[in-house]
Amino acid sequence: MSLLVVGSVAIDNIETPQARRDNLLGGSATHFAYAASFFTSVQLVSVVGGDWPAEHTELLRQRGIDVSGIQVIPDGKSFRWTGRYERNMNDRETLDIELDVFGRFEPSISDSFRRAKYVFLGNAAPVTQLRALEQVAGSRLAVADTMELWIQTTHDDLLELFKRIDGLVLNDSEAKMLADTDNLVLAGHRIRSMGPKFVVIKKGEHGAMFFGEHETYVLPAFPTERVVDPTGAGDSFAGGLMGYLAEQDNFDPETLKSAMAYGILVASFNVEGFGLERMCEITRDDITERLDAYRKMLSF
Amino acid sequence: MSLLVVGSVAIDNIETPQARRDNLLGGSATHFAYAASFFTSVQLVSVVGGDWPAEHTELLRQRGIDVSGIQVIPDGKSFRWTGRYERNMNDRETLDIELDVFGRFEPSISDSFRRAKYVFLGNAAPVTQLRALEQVAGSRLAVADTMELWIQTTHDDLLELFKRIDGLVLNDSEAKMLADTDNLVLAGHRIRSMGPKFVVIKKGEHGAMFFGEHETYVLPAFPTERVVDPTGAGDSFAGGLMGYLAEQDNFDPETLKSAMAYGILVASFNVEGFGLERMCEITRDDITERLDAYRKMLSF
Repeated sequence: MSLLVVGSVAIDNIETPQARRDNLLGGSATHFAYAASFFTSVQLVSVVGGDWPAEHTELLRQRGIDVSGIQVIPDGKSFRWTGRYERNMNDRETLDIELDVFGRFEPSISDSFRRAKYVFLGNAAPVTQLRALEQVAGSRLAVADTMELWIQTTHDDLLELFKRIDGLVLNDSEAKMLADTDNLVLAGHRIRSMGPKFVVIKKGEHGAMFFGEHETYVLPAFPTERVVDPTGAGDSFAGGLMGYLAEQDNFDPETLKSAMAYGILVASFNVEGFGLERMCEITRDDITERLDAYRKMLSF
Repeated sequence: MSLLVVGSVAIDNIETPQARRDNLLGGSATHFAYAASFFTSVQLVSVVGGDWPAEHTELLRQRGIDVSGIQVIPDGKSFRWTGRYERNMNDRETLDIELDVFGRFEPSISDSFRRAKYVFLGNAAPVTQLRALEQVAGSRLAVADTMELWIQTTHDDLLELFKRIDGLVLNDSEAKMLADTDNLVLAGHRIRSMGPKFVVIKKGEHGAMFFGEHETYVLPAFPTERVVDPTGAGDSFAGGLMGYLAEQDNFDPETLKSAMAYGILVASFNVEGFGLERMCEITRDDITERLDAYRKMLSF
């Protein structure tokens, strides 16, 4: 089954305690789409400016991602993000952010893309996500991401979105803020009661938690000492998760749990290089191999 | 196989955002011993003052713990700790600490206790731990805990200790400090290279990591929304782990992994009540039931 993602593609400048890289292909929809492409065909809806490097689009196209939904605004500028990671490689500071064309993003989804059965709404203003969602009314599974900014500034829109989506993916600090508790288990239950049928809380180096109708569980991250650049880890997690669900064309509890595991493993590769570097090196076989090791790690 | 623990028993006053309790039976060896007693017979070596409430010793004795190694110094005062937890129930502030008799603790291990094959050296000055270790030279498995204070103030003694123990259990912030890195995977490997045959890093609500000769893995905590009092969680984790190893009289890699799981589950009960309250309510069957749920949670 094909999978539609609506969200940002961007140009990232990233500084870590070890190195700095400029003009990387970034953006949440980019990391999502690349991760999902290990499992299924992906359709990407986004917007860029006239300054967008053609090779970035080409890299995604060669990966088999349908990039026809990337709108180009010739007299606009692409979304650019510059960030610096702390020594712990977890906390980061945004040094510069230029939303430009993405700040005015009005997703317009083509007729063929509107038939997508699996839809992921990358981080954007809830009204933008709702506008995209209306265009894919026939989807089988719609999952959204969000972030602190929208929790703080557009709370009502977010609650409206929650009533219409099947799943919500967000990170631990966002979940705590949204649910007004520091207990993540409680937070997950509270957020699920706001509307989404399931909630996934991403915990970075500590893995991810799942809250569904019948079950709550946590899966740890795959331990890697090679943490080069965490940018996009959460997006590649969501891409692995949704990509697997779309491939299986199923989202029963067992499939969802396997999808959580795939998401975790794809993310563990994502952090092993700057931007998409490491992802471009691996194959589905590498993921399967790591899955075997992960399963073994969790068996006793 | 019987298990010997050398460490603190204390009187705790604990304040959480929800409640406050005074004069609780606490101390690292207490939480360790109680947790281990679900699995094996436990011998406890510690020291208290003349003010020590007889009912605290009685609770441990009725649990089958051999308390003959608790030395009473009639004109001394028992170790008292008063602490307050933050809203996140993870960070805590020590409001008052009176080491008293425990500050002058010179463990003297009786002949019968010296035959213990499984030994746990609870948090104390490394020289105190070394002195205890010398008295149980014939043990089969010796594991120690430590804390930031000793990493900062008695680093050389700690390195001496590391050469003589089989396993080290410490928490994440201690591991980062000791290994001078924020990457816990790297930290575990580095600390293992300092001497211990295996290293366990406790991550609180995020579970625990294991670093052995042939394998590195992480197991998540059991998700509970009922976090009443985290005091002693790490000690009960170690107690569950060591108790299971002593019961099995084995510490091959598979047994160690099951022991890690038991430690995690016993700790998940420990935090569900103040002090030992919740632990006093449960049976081995409750632990087994949670183990089944935990195994199911980690299967996909």
